[in-house]
Amino acid sequence: MRIVKLTDDTKKNLLNDLLKRSPNNYTEYSDTVQKIVDDVRKNGNQALFEYTKKFDKADINEDNILVTKEEIEEAYNEVDSHLVEVIRKSLANIRSYHEKQKQYSWFDTTEDGTMLGQKVIALDFVGVYVPGGKAVYPSSVLMNLVPAKVAGVKNIVMTTPCNAEGKVCPTTLVAANEAGINTIYKAGGAQAIAALAFGTESIPKVDKIVGPGNIFVALAKRAVYGYVSIDSIAGPSEIMVLADESANPRFVAADLLSQAEHDELASAILVTTSMELAQSVSEEVDKFISELSRQEIISKSIENYGYILVAENMESAISAANDIASEHLEIVTKNPFEVMMKIRNAGAIFIGEYSSEPLGDYFAGPNHVLPTNGTAKFFSPLSVDDFV
Amino acid sequence: MRIVKLTDDTKKNLLNDLLKRSPNNYTEYSDTVQKIVDDVRKNGNQALFEYTKKFDKADINEDNILVTKEEIEEAYNEVDSHLVEVIRKSLANIRSYHEKQKQYSWFDTTEDGTMLGQKVIALDFVGVYVPGGKAVYPSSVLMNLVPAKVAGVKNIVMTTPCNAEGKVCPTTLVAANEAGINTIYKAGGAQAIAALAFGTESIPKVDKIVGPGNIFVALAKRAVYGYVSIDSIAGPSEIMVLADESANPRFVAADLLSQAEHDELASAILVTTSMELAQSVSEEVDKFISELSRQEIISKSIENYGYILVAENMESAISAANDIASEHLEIVTKNPFEVMMKIRNAGAIFIGEYSSEPLGDYFAGPNHVLPTNGTAKFFSPLSVDDFV
Repeated sequence: MRIVKLTDDTKKNLLNDLLKRSPNNYTEYSDTVQKIVDDVRKNGNQALFEYTKKFDKADINEDNILVTKEEIEEAYNEVDSHLVEVIRKSLANIRSYHEKQKQYSWFDTTEDGTMLGQKVIALDFVGVYVPGGKAVYPSSVLMNLVPAKVAGVKNIVMTTPCNAEGKVCPTTLVAANEAGINTIYKAGGAQAIAALAFGTESIPKVDKIVGPGNIFVALAKRAVYGYVSIDSIAGPSEIMVLADESANPRFVAADLLSQAEHDELASAILVTTSMELAQSVSEEVDKFISELSRQEIISKSIENYGYILVAENMESAISAANDIASEHLEIVTKNPFEVMMKIRNAGAIFIGEYSSEPLGDYFAGPNHVLPTNGTAKFFSPLSVDDFV
Repeated sequence: MRIVKLTDDTKKNLLNDLLKRSPNNYTEYSDTVQKIVDDVRKNGNQALFEYTKKFDKADINEDNILVTKEEIEEAYNEVDSHLVEVIRKSLANIRSYHEKQKQYSWFDTTEDGTMLGQKVIALDFVGVYVPGGKAVYPSSVLMNLVPAKVAGVKNIVMTTPCNAEGKVCPTTLVAANEAGINTIYKAGGAQAIAALAFGTESIPKVDKIVGPGNIFVALAKRAVYGYVSIDSIAGPSEIMVLADESANPRFVAADLLSQAEHDELASAILVTTSMELAQSVSEEVDKFISELSRQEIISKSIENYGYILVAENMESAISAANDIASEHLEIVTKNPFEVMMKIRNAGAIFIGEYSSEPLGDYFAGPNHVLPTNGTAKFFSPLSVDDFV
């Protein structure tokens, strides 16, 4: 893994590299996506089914677009019962965390008879998009559904692509059912986002669309913003570890790779005050890569978007962390709480070497839908507030 | 003012009429706006100054783009001292209301040693756009600046167009100065939004842009969304009055016109259970129009987007109010609190006949930056939450 000295120039180069991954840079697909959106808006189901045939190779129609009770039951047979247990525990953690975010209506009066207040109520109708494809995460289902549920949204529907046989990933179905959602449509891509935004004969128009997706999904969400509300437009994942000489290099390397393995566009950055740690982490990363199953993806990610930055002191390391505003930030220093106090920009902060990022991503409770690509400077993690 | 029976069909027609006013329907300007945005992004000040010359006829350069201390002092000489007093009282009300919205960081621990929390901090850099043009509202300045200030944003800058002589509206300067902001740039239109989003040699890049504006400003905000955060994209203003036979027709008519006078595209709707009230309000509106100074604007607004809907009963009147999701909703009925409980979609609710909408718009304290054109179904008023 490349090791560079942290300077204003290296930081600038790094930021430029990271921004290349932004959905804003894929405007060559904008026209295609706009056409799909307009077509579904105008022609409803007919367009939706045609695009599903074209892109997902599946024959979907009015009669089979909705996942049946039987399909959900069948999914439980296909998912390992230990995984179902983990999904249930994780669901309890996520629910408990989000309960604490709830805001309530309030009213206040003054002696002159003025009464002012704020009425907080849940949205009426939310659509959750769940991607299919390469890597399917039941956590994505839970992280999007639970805050909407906790906010009190009564009508929540889900769309997710099916394969050519019309089958939806069973863990997605199990996770949704555990979270209490069983209105699930077999629809993916830009066409599914358009269907949720404008409604078709089969899919209801919603007020807000949330959930991750590929570049077509991201651009479609951008195109329908204003007609409906959306969560922020997600870019590829990122992890930054901020560490001093006290950090365990093997732990740091493992956590860096936990994001690199997601996607060739994912980024993994170590900022450290210790050249010794920098070198040992670089070696550990190489060792891990040779052992891991997703070798090719990891290598590309590390090669293009992996950096070890060596800072002169902790102040400049922290300042770099704030400028880069990483989606995930692990603080692995002697005094992690003191460092945390100085962090202004990050999607999620993990404190201390036992707060491994994947733990937060899948299980601990805080939301894993986080601002990427420097947008932690102005966007927040998905929360109950997004559904009121 | 036209009186129609409330049915599913009339509601549908009305919603179609209102949606014609949406910024989403002015895509013929999108390319022009995108060109301006790209040009300012690429060429900075040079492009910004050229567009300012072209659109505002003003010679602005590096040396005179920033409003000076002397200009602010001069503005106080030009603004009626009674207005300054009102601005100060209004500022105190707005500040006091928004203080109650503040969210704080929290942490929680469990017996197994898990510690989870949420860190809430203010954005670093906010840009507030204040329009010039036809009608200038010091309240627009306060409503955008105060929640950012209360949230704790340290760097707040303002941009507003100047006239051909390079002069900015004095009430805008006074309101900004009273709110504690004195970094004010003479820049307006799409070019000002682009300058705030990407930075130029004179104007700093911000994290979030808020504030109202014409269609070019709205489309520019849409174009830079994702590079920075924005508040929601505002459409023309709306008022709805929900009234029964107990309402005073003269009060209702006056309040309907309080929005109609803003803009030819503004909408004013009365939903009532009483045909008698419908007729008296219609007459009162006609009387007012013949007396008022902004006659032409009001007449066009009432003619195109003014409706009196007569509902069979209060349930269907409330249901129409929720479907239309008006920016402002006045409830003028015998039991306004009971009706308020059933309102799900509205930007702001005014309870009882003495809670006149303009009072809330300018003075009472709650924010007047509200979701328009049915977006109250999924967007919220501007609040302190928007700046953390």
